Amino acid sequence: MPEFFNVLPPQRALQALLDAMPPPAPGTEEVAVDEALGRITAHDLCAAEELPAFPRATVDGYSLRAADTFGASEGLPAYFTVVGEVLMGHPAEVSVFRGETAGAYTGGMLAHNADAVVMVEHTQQVDANTIEVVRPVAPGENVVQPGEDIRRGEAILPRGHLLRPQDLGGLTALGITRVKVTRRPRVAILSMGDEVVSPDVTPAPGQIRDINSYTVAAQVSRAGGEPLALGIVGDDYEEQLTAARKGLKRADALVLSAGSSVSSRDMTADIINALGEPGVLVHGLSIRPGKPAILGLVEGKPAFGLPGNPVSAMIVFDLVVRPTLYRLAGCVHPPEPSIAWAALTLDIASAPGREDYVPVQVYGNGHGELMAEPVFGKSNLIFTLIRADGLVQVPLDKAGLYAGETVPVRLF
Amino acid sequence: MPEFFNVLPPQRALQALLDAMPPPAPGTEEVAVDEALGRITAHDLCAAEELPAFPRATVDGYSLRAADTFGASEGLPAYFTVVGEVLMGHPAEVSVFRGETAGAYTGGMLAHNADAVVMVEHTQQVDANTIEVVRPVAPGENVVQPGEDIRRGEAILPRGHLLRPQDLGGLTALGITRVKVTRRPRVAILSMGDEVVSPDVTPAPGQIRDINSYTVAAQVSRAGGEPLALGIVGDDYEEQLTAARKGLKRADALVLSAGSSVSSRDMTADIINALGEPGVLVHGLSIRPGKPAILGLVEGKPAFGLPGNPVSAMIVFDLVVRPTLYRLAGCVHPPEPSIAWAALTLDIASAPGREDYVPVQVYGNGHGELMAEPVFGKSNLIFTLIRADGLVQVPLDKAGLYAGETVPVRLF
Repeated sequence: MPEFFNVLPPQRALQALLDAMPPPAPGTEEVAVDEALGRITAHDLCAAEELPAFPRATVDGYSLRAADTFGASEGLPAYFTVVGEVLMGHPAEVSVFRGETAGAYTGGMLAHNADAVVMVEHTQQVDANTIEVVRPVAPGENVVQPGEDIRRGEAILPRGHLLRPQDLGGLTALGITRVKVTRRPRVAILSMGDEVVSPDVTPAPGQIRDINSYTVAAQVSRAGGEPLALGIVGDDYEEQLTAARKGLKRADALVLSAGSSVSSRDMTADIINALGEPGVLVHGLSIRPGKPAILGLVEGKPAFGLPGNPVSAMIVFDLVVRPTLYRLAGCVHPPEPSIAWAALTLDIASAPGREDYVPVQVYGNGHGELMAEPVFGKSNLIFTLIRADGLVQVPLDKAGLYAGETVPVRLF
Repeated sequence: MPEFFNVLPPQRALQALLDAMPPPAPGTEEVAVDEALGRITAHDLCAAEELPAFPRATVDGYSLRAADTFGASEGLPAYFTVVGEVLMGHPAEVSVFRGETAGAYTGGMLAHNADAVVMVEHTQQVDANTIEVVRPVAPGENVVQPGEDIRRGEAILPRGHLLRPQDLGGLTALGITRVKVTRRPRVAILSMGDEVVSPDVTPAPGQIRDINSYTVAAQVSRAGGEPLALGIVGDDYEEQLTAARKGLKRADALVLSAGSSVSSRDMTADIINALGEPGVLVHGLSIRPGKPAILGLVEGKPAFGLPGNPVSAMIVFDLVVRPTLYRLAGCVHPPEPSIAWAALTLDIASAPGREDYVPVQVYGNGHGELMAEPVFGKSNLIFTLIRADGLVQVPLDKAGLYAGETVPVRLF
């Protein structure tokens, strides 16, 4: 078929697009830390202070000078005078000298002059003001030193980091309550085809309801982007071009869900070429399903033509659009897809020179093993993916996979 | 230490809580399909119609009666009169009889009376109204039959299903634009301790800024819940009890982040017992870090006491609070944690009878293998988790793991 003049494996196609894209220069915005989960840092962040800011006890017990405990044992305990305690949340107001100690609490400060904490379990109360210590402690034992968590000036998080719950905790620990993050990439989504109608319409014979606007929008959200649904346009070149041009003006990337006939697919390529330079970069992927996919670049903005078939569209999105969105957001290490290893229950045939993606159901076999059972049915039907838990990839260089093989399942 | 009277492995502790909980009866709400990603279905959903609703071509070509092609070959083609075509999005307005055919497009309808589609690549145009077919097709070939994707009355999605992008597409395909989902569980979070101050305050000596309110809130959001931050209360039993009681009234679950000293931890147990029946169910987990954790139930609502140490708190949340939240939301198969398999670079020592969770950095070794390098430093420091990509578990029955062993890393 003429349009498949430079069919590429998805990884090479993606690389060709990323290489052609200008360096990411996402806009930034400042958000409160408690709204920053999943966002991407816009700058390197350094610690303006050290943590902890004071020596903290890691156990409940008594702070003292470690040297005074050397040689202590059950048979020959060391005796200490309790000269006070340091309460939680309070500064140390007591100092300890030779043979003196002060009560200490987990997370609390040590007394001045103390360099270690002895656990309460290794002490005995002798009288109101005296304890015996039955085990020696080393200097620094049961203590977190100032700066041991993070030193002043040390890097906290690099630019392009996807913020996780613990990262937010690290920021608040340092008093950082607002953080500069990159703007979510906005992705314009246009569903095309004379046969496609809105889901709230009863389709006439020959028509189908729009699926791809919704699956793609959800995939955009999941990849940290902001979907901008442009609606449905029929198979009219001028109308499609106008809608695509308007959409791309308001967005950072464009996804066209093409009609499924060859002529509609050709039209998608023409539209991406007409939108601007350089236009179509890759026309066709060596995968099944998903072959009739287009990757392009228009004045620095990525533009994709996804197959009309919803299963193909979702797989192509996952393989090439998703990583592109993370790149647009300035994310340096996008999250890897979730993988489960499972044993195939059936042979899967493929053809060398093509990556196949086969929907599978994953289930435990009752003996602690995961099994992956291919979902029967034509692979271009949306309910195939709904019945599935993930996809098994048959690599480019293999003619198939055998029942019993343990394979990675891309949870989907 | 007296409070660890029934230390349990986290899985058994979780099970004890789930067993004691009443059956989930989450509230429900109806949301638009394009806002339903990640939500949990409140009902079984069935297809009110079949998909596709008409026989659809899966290739571009010609629809015809398969029997008329039997015996056709390159040497002896079968000739067909082209009596029309069925345009995309249009009903078939043409019928085919013996020796007749009509143009068909991928995704379009077949002509009346046709039972197969021959690919355009297997035809030759003879004149304006005649084609030759050089390969036979079987009845049903290159056709998706009505109901082949889903039959009328068939189950689409069961109750308690976490909605993925493809599920939303399946709903819109069937004309379902709003869906009943369970309410997000609301989780009240109270940070306790005389030493804890708000992140926007400069801590005095002996004080630290609140971390757990933020990490726990982010973990709640990530598990599909709605965090309700109650703020910080000092080590005063009455004040803590009042705040916890108020919070629990407005929420479906309660998370107390305890101060880190033994007395604060004891207070947490007292508070959970004072809130209502049955109170504390599990006091202490056989894990490190995370041992001083409390699981309780108060008038049917789960209540957790997390350790004050932020690393412990996050790990305990992941192991016991997260699955409880999915249960509250009525989710039948909560998503599994993401796992990467990697080779340990160093021995990890542990103690039998205890699960250890060790933060690791994951990186490729340049030969296609993932390596897991334990993050040095005291494990109770938040930046240990920030520097890490995941956690390696040393199972209960092992005394450690060896360098070179390939182990599952729970990405975190």
